[in-house]
Amino acid sequence: MTSSIGFLGPPGTYSEQAAVAYQRQIQRQEDSLPELKAYPSILQVIQSVSNSSIDFAVVPVENSIEGGVTVTLDALWQLPKLKIQHALIIPISHALLTASDNLQGLSQIYSHPQALGQCQQWIQAHCPQASLVPTSSTTEVLKTLEKTHNAAAIASKWAADLYGLPVLAHPINDRPDNFTKFWVLGRQDLQIGAHTSLAFSLPANVPGGLLAPLKIMFQDAINLSRIESRPTKRSLGEYLFFLDLEAGLHQEKTQRAIHALRECTETLRIFGSYYISTQGTETNP
Amino acid sequence: MTSSIGFLGPPGTYSEQAAVAYQRQIQRQEDSLPELKAYPSILQVIQSVSNSSIDFAVVPVENSIEGGVTVTLDALWQLPKLKIQHALIIPISHALLTASDNLQGLSQIYSHPQALGQCQQWIQAHCPQASLVPTSSTTEVLKTLEKTHNAAAIASKWAADLYGLPVLAHPINDRPDNFTKFWVLGRQDLQIGAHTSLAFSLPANVPGGLLAPLKIMFQDAINLSRIESRPTKRSLGEYLFFLDLEAGLHQEKTQRAIHALRECTETLRIFGSYYISTQGTETNP
Repeated sequence: MTSSIGFLGPPGTYSEQAAVAYQRQIQRQEDSLPELKAYPSILQVIQSVSNSSIDFAVVPVENSIEGGVTVTLDALWQLPKLKIQHALIIPISHALLTASDNLQGLSQIYSHPQALGQCQQWIQAHCPQASLVPTSSTTEVLKTLEKTHNAAAIASKWAADLYGLPVLAHPINDRPDNFTKFWVLGRQDLQIGAHTSLAFSLPANVPGGLLAPLKIMFQDAINLSRIESRPTKRSLGEYLFFLDLEAGLHQEKTQRAIHALRECTETLRIFGSYYISTQGTETNP
Repeated sequence: MTSSIGFLGPPGTYSEQAAVAYQRQIQRQEDSLPELKAYPSILQVIQSVSNSSIDFAVVPVENSIEGGVTVTLDALWQLPKLKIQHALIIPISHALLTASDNLQGLSQIYSHPQALGQCQQWIQAHCPQASLVPTSSTTEVLKTLEKTHNAAAIASKWAADLYGLPVLAHPINDRPDNFTKFWVLGRQDLQIGAHTSLAFSLPANVPGGLLAPLKIMFQDAINLSRIESRPTKRSLGEYLFFLDLEAGLHQEKTQRAIHALRECTETLRIFGSYYISTQGTETNP
């Protein structure tokens, strides 16, 4: 049976680039090309895996400039069926797409708030007169962009090709080292790979509550590549902690650490262990 | 001389409610009413204090549902003149503002992404057909809302009164316990109050790098009320850590902890110590 992969659409987003990269990986393993399916929001992609409408969700979890993608972390905590199958790191290189040839004449620039944020110095220097219009994805307005007078959009060169739109400037990111990490979410508990992600809440009113979990990692020489706090949504000042461990669930020290973590946390959720693959800029079809 | 307080406008935002609460506090101390000034973005409010155009910025730093306000944390790290003068906790109670009387007929709902996020279940249950349009503040579209056919906005009841717009539903937050913490940023290093905020980066490639700073707090029985990581923006996987301590800079143990922190961090920034005041819902004028 052909599997299916959901991503934040419309087609042409960086999420689709990540989804295509994962599609090729599966094709090599399964000898059939998984179907790609675009969704209007990250939450809907994730929910569709949880309710078994699709097999995999390829969703952004962290950008090197803008930080964590909170909707992904919060959904993963709330939906107990979900496990991380794989992680992909994709380089982000923004282009200015417009039918106009005059930067000074642009009146609106459309894009996802993260992309607008990542190009703000470039916009300030080259077309400060343009007003910035946030959209739900980098490609949301591309279908109708040519009809809008003096408008431009920020998206990838891949999206420009896909929609047949001219690129007036590229790259326009303020920082050239711009990467986004995507998680592939599914329902299988694979327990492979050298990276493990988990999250926990702490018992209320324990001073230094985070110290005990960190000590456990340190004692077993498990390196933490990331720690991020999210509100429990119960009351201001109560947090969940999301940790990425540089160790796999098949390793004894990881199992030992998890056993010890159960003792000092309130709720502990293990999102699985997985491999990370890094894509070069040339992966764009 | 009358002091000046900047906030994210246009008028009617929750930021203005917090700014008004702080304006009254200063009035009691200074016997003159500080001037309020609306800005189009949180970053511009903060920059205006740093370049001495205004005296204080009242900016959101954390919401109990949506978590940290990253632009505030990033700007505070980057602008060395800024210190925290005070913190205010404001209850958030969203209303649906629209001239329409038919929830099922709404085609767009406008608001700040955090407000849209905080009402998503309510929207899904009552008007799933409406598309969500992110704006730069909860009040950005209120002036022109009545001209837009079948449109609604999410903002406070206070904003509805201010713009003379009908409230079709209230409260519409998915969770009733919804609070936002605001920081008052200024240029004075007050060193008063029982709360201290600081941030640091860690030397590269030190395993368990975060453990040493946390141990320092624990040894001196300083409770951490918050820990949040932000990317350094240099490369994926490198973080700054923002900590809130339940101890004031005037206390010996805090000074001892800071001295020890300098030894195990790369860059350490102290944002000052301050009092926190909590506002009831009735503070809305």
